[in-house]
Amino acid sequence: MGFRQTVSSFTDRDWQQTTDGTVRLALVGLGWWTIDEAIPAIQDTDLCEVTVLVSRSQEKAQRFADEADVPHAISGAGYHDGECADEYDAIYVATPNAYHLEYVETAAELGKAVLCEKPMEASVERAEQMVEVADDASIPLMVAYRMHTEPAVRRARELVDSGVIGEPVQVYGNNSQPLLSMIEDPDQWRLDPDASGYGTSMMDLGIYPINTARFILGSDPVSVQAQMTSMHDAFADVPDERSTATVVYDDGVHAAITATQNAYNDTELTITGTDGQLTLSPAFHMECELAVETADRSFSASADDINEMTEEFDYFADRVLSSEPVYADGEHGLYDMRVLKALHESADTGRTVDLE
Amino acid sequence: MGFRQTVSSFTDRDWQQTTDGTVRLALVGLGWWTIDEAIPAIQDTDLCEVTVLVSRSQEKAQRFADEADVPHAISGAGYHDGECADEYDAIYVATPNAYHLEYVETAAELGKAVLCEKPMEASVERAEQMVEVADDASIPLMVAYRMHTEPAVRRARELVDSGVIGEPVQVYGNNSQPLLSMIEDPDQWRLDPDASGYGTSMMDLGIYPINTARFILGSDPVSVQAQMTSMHDAFADVPDERSTATVVYDDGVHAAITATQNAYNDTELTITGTDGQLTLSPAFHMECELAVETADRSFSASADDINEMTEEFDYFADRVLSSEPVYADGEHGLYDMRVLKALHESADTGRTVDLE
Repeated sequence: MGFRQTVSSFTDRDWQQTTDGTVRLALVGLGWWTIDEAIPAIQDTDLCEVTVLVSRSQEKAQRFADEADVPHAISGAGYHDGECADEYDAIYVATPNAYHLEYVETAAELGKAVLCEKPMEASVERAEQMVEVADDASIPLMVAYRMHTEPAVRRARELVDSGVIGEPVQVYGNNSQPLLSMIEDPDQWRLDPDASGYGTSMMDLGIYPINTARFILGSDPVSVQAQMTSMHDAFADVPDERSTATVVYDDGVHAAITATQNAYNDTELTITGTDGQLTLSPAFHMECELAVETADRSFSASADDINEMTEEFDYFADRVLSSEPVYADGEHGLYDMRVLKALHESADTGRTVDLE
Repeated sequence: MGFRQTVSSFTDRDWQQTTDGTVRLALVGLGWWTIDEAIPAIQDTDLCEVTVLVSRSQEKAQRFADEADVPHAISGAGYHDGECADEYDAIYVATPNAYHLEYVETAAELGKAVLCEKPMEASVERAEQMVEVADDASIPLMVAYRMHTEPAVRRARELVDSGVIGEPVQVYGNNSQPLLSMIEDPDQWRLDPDASGYGTSMMDLGIYPINTARFILGSDPVSVQAQMTSMHDAFADVPDERSTATVVYDDGVHAAITATQNAYNDTELTITGTDGQLTLSPAFHMECELAVETADRSFSASADDINEMTEEFDYFADRVLSSEPVYADGEHGLYDMRVLKALHESADTGRTVDLE
C-alpha cells in the first residue's frame, strides 16, 4: 500500500462482506453518547435499525423513544424478563462499565448478538465472565473499538504494514479532555469506582491510544508502568485524574501514553519508525486525521464525510448478517482489561507489571 | 506576557547585562559538534572569541586551528600542564561525557570559567566532584543547556508563567535520531558506557525534553519510571537504544518521554494545560518552533535567524563579564544526572524511583 493507493481508496469499506439484510438493535443505556452520537449514526447505516431502547426507568426509555421515533421502550427489568425479545436481533451496551455484564448475560440467554462499549467491564474478572457467557451461548460478542473501522486508522495500519515508515520503534498516545466542563455533575459515574472500575483516565481515555496502537502494530502490550495523580476534589474517589504510562509491545515497540480527564481537549497517536513518522491528530474524539512523513515525502488525509459510529455499526451488522467472526472480540477486549488492571497495579505498587 | 508581546519581542535578549568585553575561549574536544556547530556560532557572538583549541592529540588540534584560524593549539596533556593559560579566560568542554571532569578540575586550578556540555559527566558521583571542585575554586560552572537561551523556549516559559494555557497538567517530550546514519562508526563513544555513562538515549537525547520541561515549568522531577530496550547489534553495550519514561514533577505535572538513537529524526515538547496547549516542534536539534493553541486563539513563531549556540555562548560570556551567576549552574546539571541515574535504575529494577 503506497501513498497514492491510500488516497484513492481512503474510505473504502475493505471489510464489507454483505449489503443485504438488517440487524435490529436494542440500545441499552441512554446517556449522551447513545442519544447524541449512536442513534443519529445508526440512522445513516445500511444494515442497522434501532427498534428498542432500554433504560433503567421505562419512563426515560419511552421519552427518548418518542423523540427518536423508536417503536419500543422497555426498562432494564423488562429487558431481563425478555420483553420485546422478538423485536431485536442484537444489543448495543453503553451503560456505565460495571453494568455491562448483566446485560450481556441476558443477551446470551436470549441468543442475541452483542456490541459492548469499551472498556468491557469494571474489572478483569467481570470481563472474563462476559467472555465465558458469550462463548457458552455462542453469541457474537464484539467490543466497540470504533477506531478499528475509522478509515484513517485502517489506512495507517496498511501503511505501517507495507513498511512506509520502516520498522516501528516508538509510539506516543495522548487522550485528554475537560470532563467536568463536558458533564458538570461531580457525581457522574466516570468518577465513581463502583461504576467505572479501576479508575477514570486510563479506563475511559488511555485505552484509546493503547488499543489503537495494538490494532495498527498488530502486537500486544507485554510490560507496563504507570504513574497516576488525582488533585481536584471531584477526583477524590479515583486515583487517576491524570495518568502517564510506558507500554512495551510484544514486538519491542515502546509507547508513552498520557491521559487526563481534567485538561484541554487533545488527542494524538504518533508512531515513529526507522524511516518515517505517522501521526493521527486529532485521533480519538470522532475526528481522525492521518499524516505521514518520510525523508522525501509527506501526505495527510481524513475522511470528513464518514461517521465513525456509522462505520462501526455497519461493520458489526455485516459480521452478524454474514456469520463471520467479529473483531475486536471478547478476548481482545479482555486483554485490554488486563492491561488496564496492570497499569493501576503499577501505579499502586511502583513496580513494572508484566502481562503473561 | 500575551501573544502580541511574545511576537514583538520574540528574539529579545532579555538576559543581557553587558555589551562590553570579550571572553577568550579554549575549546576542549574537537568532535563534529565543536567544529561544525560551536566554532561558526562563536564567530557570530558579540562577546566571545576562540583563542585556543584543545584535543587529545596536539596534531589534530593544530590542524583544526589552522583551518579555523585559531591562534593556539594544544594537547590535552599540555592543557593540564597550563600551556597557553594566559591566552584564554574560559573553557568550553565538549569531550565525551566521561572526560568532562578532568578538564574542569584543571580549569578550577587555573581559575578559568567553565561552560560544560550536558550531560555533565558519566555518573552522579563524577558530577558531584565537578560541582565541588568548581565551588572550591569559586569558578563559574555553567552546564550547556542551550535550550535555556533559545528564544522559543524563553517565550514558552513566559506564556506558561502568565497562564495562557491555564494550569500545566501534562508534558510529552520526544527526541529521536538515527545515530548510526549520522556517525557511521559503530565504535563511537555514545555507544560505549565507559565514555558515555549510564547509557545513550536518555543521557544524550531524553535529557533535552526532561530538562527543557524543568526550565519552562520551573519545577523538578520527583518520581520516575523507565523501560529501555536495545535490539540492534551496535547497541549491545548500552541498555537503551530506545527508552520510554514517565516523570512526575514537583508541581504534580506528569511527563511522558520517549528517546531513541535508532529511528527517524523527530523532536517535540508539548505541554497541555487546563486551558490550552503549547508545542515546540521541532524542538531540540538547532531548530525550535513554538505553537500555542487555546479555545479561541492560536499562534506560532520561530526565530529562524538566531543560532542557538551563538545565544548560549553570548549568555555565558555576559554572565562571566558581569560577574553574575550562571544558569544552568552545576547543581542544576547535577540534578539531571540524578534523574538520569534514577531512570536507569528504574529500567534495571522495574521499580518507580523517587528523587529526594
